Amino acid sequence: MQDTLILKGHILHTPSPTQLVAISHGYIVAVDGVVVYCGKTLPSSYEGLPVVDYGDQLIIPGFVDTHAHAPQYCNRGLGMDKELLPWLETYTFPEETKFNDPEYARLVYSAFVRDLWRHGTTRSILFGTIHKDSTVVLMKLLEEAGLSALVGKVNMDRNSPDFLIETTEQSLADTKAWLEASKSFGPLVKPIITPRFVPSCTSELMRGLGELAKEYDVPVQSHLSENYGEIEWVSALHPESDSYTDVYYEHQLMGQTPTVMAHCIHLSDEEMDRMEETQTMVSHCPYSNVNLSSGIAPIRKLLEHHIPVGLGSDISGGHAVSMAKVLMEAIGLSKMKWVEVDNQYAPLTLREAFYLATKGGGTFFGKVGSFEEGYELDALIIDDTSMFDANERSLEERLERWIYIGDDRHIMKRYVAGRLVEEPK
Amino acid sequence: MQDTLILKGHILHTPSPTQLVAISHGYIVAVDGVVVYCGKTLPSSYEGLPVVDYGDQLIIPGFVDTHAHAPQYCNRGLGMDKELLPWLETYTFPEETKFNDPEYARLVYSAFVRDLWRHGTTRSILFGTIHKDSTVVLMKLLEEAGLSALVGKVNMDRNSPDFLIETTEQSLADTKAWLEASKSFGPLVKPIITPRFVPSCTSELMRGLGELAKEYDVPVQSHLSENYGEIEWVSALHPESDSYTDVYYEHQLMGQTPTVMAHCIHLSDEEMDRMEETQTMVSHCPYSNVNLSSGIAPIRKLLEHHIPVGLGSDISGGHAVSMAKVLMEAIGLSKMKWVEVDNQYAPLTLREAFYLATKGGGTFFGKVGSFEEGYELDALIIDDTSMFDANERSLEERLERWIYIGDDRHIMKRYVAGRLVEEPK
Repeated sequence: MQDTLILKGHILHTPSPTQLVAISHGYIVAVDGVVVYCGKTLPSSYEGLPVVDYGDQLIIPGFVDTHAHAPQYCNRGLGMDKELLPWLETYTFPEETKFNDPEYARLVYSAFVRDLWRHGTTRSILFGTIHKDSTVVLMKLLEEAGLSALVGKVNMDRNSPDFLIETTEQSLADTKAWLEASKSFGPLVKPIITPRFVPSCTSELMRGLGELAKEYDVPVQSHLSENYGEIEWVSALHPESDSYTDVYYEHQLMGQTPTVMAHCIHLSDEEMDRMEETQTMVSHCPYSNVNLSSGIAPIRKLLEHHIPVGLGSDISGGHAVSMAKVLMEAIGLSKMKWVEVDNQYAPLTLREAFYLATKGGGTFFGKVGSFEEGYELDALIIDDTSMFDANERSLEERLERWIYIGDDRHIMKRYVAGRLVEEPK
Repeated sequence: MQDTLILKGHILHTPSPTQLVAISHGYIVAVDGVVVYCGKTLPSSYEGLPVVDYGDQLIIPGFVDTHAHAPQYCNRGLGMDKELLPWLETYTFPEETKFNDPEYARLVYSAFVRDLWRHGTTRSILFGTIHKDSTVVLMKLLEEAGLSALVGKVNMDRNSPDFLIETTEQSLADTKAWLEASKSFGPLVKPIITPRFVPSCTSELMRGLGELAKEYDVPVQSHLSENYGEIEWVSALHPESDSYTDVYYEHQLMGQTPTVMAHCIHLSDEEMDRMEETQTMVSHCPYSNVNLSSGIAPIRKLLEHHIPVGLGSDISGGHAVSMAKVLMEAIGLSKMKWVEVDNQYAPLTLREAFYLATKGGGTFFGKVGSFEEGYELDALIIDDTSMFDANERSLEERLERWIYIGDDRHIMKRYVAGRLVEEPK
């Protein structure tokens, strides 16, 4: 028997980066969690069925966070006077070590999952830690919450602190065991192969992970070209490769299965060609790139290269879980690049950034991030009435205003794949 | 009879840009609203007096917003795809025109004042509109709320829309009448002479305003060097002056009385010399400068020039009323200037930006923005316990974390000049 859901309200979504569809008092019809209709009037075939009428509230796609480190949740907003490598040593590695204890993991991951829910992040691509059991804890919490995610057990077998490192054999064995354990999860939560970044993974480990990605047919995530010091380090570690990008490519970790790379700030044109050829997604993490003084990724240039782009919170290099605020920052950074750096690539518009935060990242999950027919219905219901305004505004203006000055207090409901998701316990 | 207030809690303040004082379970004693003691133990002379004990909560100075347009409150987060001049025409001028009606002014200004309170802005330097009666409405609402502010009736007699312009005579007459009316206000709310910016004011008007500033001994605020198009425009309007800065200087609108200029992004070294000589304060408005693609003000360079600097929300070029978020953005922009533009001036640290948001701007009000002896006691009580953290943190880390990921929900109490200020009606 088919499960039909009909939502009514002010609908806003971006089928393409330049197209914002705004439908006043429109209808979305989903059958078994998939949109079959989105428009101004309810088709006669659905008349008589119950309609969830959200009145004057906005209905927008759920947000997609394409890069976050769940174990760093407590560290948000700390150590922001440091750059990447010292920040990792002072704050990140000591915290991740604690996830050796699955009970500590449950404590922190529960708070993190609740915050994803609170801020309307219906899909996320997450780093766990090297600890397979704790990573399974995170996957269980997400599944129980009804949120969708790709979750990775992290791999690190070199250049890492004594307290947060694996042998190559153990790393591969644990990854295989975790991939087996992951088979028990339903359609919303899946594994993703997760070498931390080139400096923390030997060639042997990277090759082994590439083989596992192929064997289990799972996607791959990592970090790429975030910081000048990091790039030089990779170059010193891999003189045989032409670029940081090519290190991943040559170890079968780019494009063999769907791949997403966080940051990609300082790519050469040749690296962009490789990203395009392999259709590797860039996870643009603007807050993180500011906080860690990493730089401004050339998003319009990447888009013109036909490279897929999504947005990432990068908790906790980024401090904000809210993808509304992350997309705002993406716009701001693109403006700063334009006015202060190149005066060449036009800043991102609101529509473009909203697209990146929904359908842009959503493509990594399949048909996600839009209300077009065939798309899984992830939706947020936004009540902006408490944000005082003495004026009438268009729906697009109301959306922009909420993104800039609203917050989680205005998100009234969240739907994931057609299912209403309540606050996690 | 003297009124003594004793607060106890985790005290944090910045007497200088590089010095963060953090006192665990310390005491602040204020007599008649002025700090007479701040330290770890209560001096014996105050023993036996009632102590307001805030337990594990943080006590920080109230925030100082050195530049905001109160009438643009409803427009926050709108039209952010536009640059300064088209944005003014589309959003700002039509909205400001409505303040011809003091009842509309009361409606919007009430919401704005409540938001200042909510976000812990205890002092602010505000633009009203050209309308003197509505400007008095704003001043009354601030005084009733117990918040401190310098408020300006705006002057505009050229290059302005037909519906938002004054004759030179009327502008000066209204300003004089408003300055007289302002005499009825108490010590917390005072007038400030406010030519909108050079392009909207004739030389005759600017000179007249300079005379009024001197006659009534009131400070001056305006805009300076925000946007390249604006700078070229000023240059075309005033070929007789060497710079935008000198136009103000030559019209007695800089340094004759205390002066604050918003933005100052693209100043030449000669202009910086003039700012230093006149001790004109720069109101750095990072969100606005991002939103309107204006550029990144060289804050460390200005500080090295011994120019006083405060921070401004610039509502509604800036979208955020929260000065915690504005100071965070100031740090972020300074990092982007360092990594993407000059690699010369070190980014602002948390301490420096916190100083700018408190004592930096506070100096425009006298001894404000710190808990040193002799300073007026403006304070916020921050309860950060709801921001989940599984770790113990230092007080400075707790402050940083709240600035990055906290919001108005964590501000439990506000004091202005030693008085507890309740939510405005």
